[in-house]
Amino acid sequence: MSDGLFITLEGVEGAGKTTQAKQLAEWLSGLGLPVLATREPGAGLIGAQIRQVLLNPANTELAPMTEALLLAADRAQHVAETLRPALAAGKIIVCDRYADSFFAYQGYGRGLNMAELISLNEAAAGGLIPDITLLLELPPDEGLKRAAKRGASDRMEQEQLDFHRRLSDGYQKLAEAFPQRIRQINAAQEETLVQADMRKVLLPLLYERGLVRDVVR
Amino acid sequence: MSDGLFITLEGVEGAGKTTQAKQLAEWLSGLGLPVLATREPGAGLIGAQIRQVLLNPANTELAPMTEALLLAADRAQHVAETLRPALAAGKIIVCDRYADSFFAYQGYGRGLNMAELISLNEAAAGGLIPDITLLLELPPDEGLKRAAKRGASDRMEQEQLDFHRRLSDGYQKLAEAFPQRIRQINAAQEETLVQADMRKVLLPLLYERGLVRDVVR
Repeated sequence: MSDGLFITLEGVEGAGKTTQAKQLAEWLSGLGLPVLATREPGAGLIGAQIRQVLLNPANTELAPMTEALLLAADRAQHVAETLRPALAAGKIIVCDRYADSFFAYQGYGRGLNMAELISLNEAAAGGLIPDITLLLELPPDEGLKRAAKRGASDRMEQEQLDFHRRLSDGYQKLAEAFPQRIRQINAAQEETLVQADMRKVLLPLLYERGLVRDVVR
Repeated sequence: MSDGLFITLEGVEGAGKTTQAKQLAEWLSGLGLPVLATREPGAGLIGAQIRQVLLNPANTELAPMTEALLLAADRAQHVAETLRPALAAGKIIVCDRYADSFFAYQGYGRGLNMAELISLNEAAAGGLIPDITLLLELPPDEGLKRAAKRGASDRMEQEQLDFHRRLSDGYQKLAEAFPQRIRQINAAQEETLVQADMRKVLLPLLYERGLVRDVVR
């Protein structure tokens, strides 16, 4: 039994994470691997309830630290209830957003103290770090345009462009800080090319872990 | 304009905190003081949504750390949205449960790491400490009996007696650690006597702060 593999997808709004994560999970399943597709925030019964509080448009007075603690609560539940058991069962996890979103949005975006966020994330994640993170990169104005086009209007997506610029910069800094784990993908390309680039990054890792027998598929 | 006064009520389930807090707030109002009666978890629009997640009987898989982070989120919102503005406006706050509940329930009760809880509480409360805490003390089996009698059956109150014993011990340790702030009240007495003891403890403080002119009322 393998130890499983923990893959996360990251990026600004509208970078196409959800579509790409779905296609990636289908590809991995097609390779005969046991896949779990999940996301943060909002996985599971309890996560869904926390997500509702986070995205409720009536919650205009939500304090930045409240938001951070709710996201940490969502992560604590996700790690305990879903991620650790799935990895122990040898699953390949494809997770749409994880701790890098926390540091990019709450730290670089909202300006909360990074040391405080690191200790909150440690309490929540208990040391569970992705094996690989695919960062879908898009100029923030392009991301906002795409998000607006699909009619999204929850609280997160109503944020101003300068907020999205800050978090795009934040993601850049995270990628520079963790070059081994975080792999940058050009998400401004056509959808099929983005997917192809993601698979190209993953194949050597799958091969190295003995999860596929060759790298030419 | 005064700086306000921050009073918290603490104790095990069934100790009568809710009734006593209400009567205390009425008494303070009767003295002509501007009172805010509030509680944790669950104050305000956002707190109420977090409380729903915490007390939802369907959430049987709620992890101890998720619970702690949700309580911290509730506190962060309460402090930012309600407590700090009320104190700045010179209000006398009567708050049913606050940080001591967090340490008693999550620390001594659930056995989470106390150092981690202290840093979560610091993130949430940002240093806001009660001026005085009235700890309503009751033998835990008596508290459970009372809670059962009023037909309460939310998730918290279904916990076992040994859990309640641990948190009763926890409250004792907190009272020993902060003897100046935490004042112990015998809640096994008749309701009117409990209230009288609480007022006796508060009057000197109100006098010292210039909030009442004499201590004989």
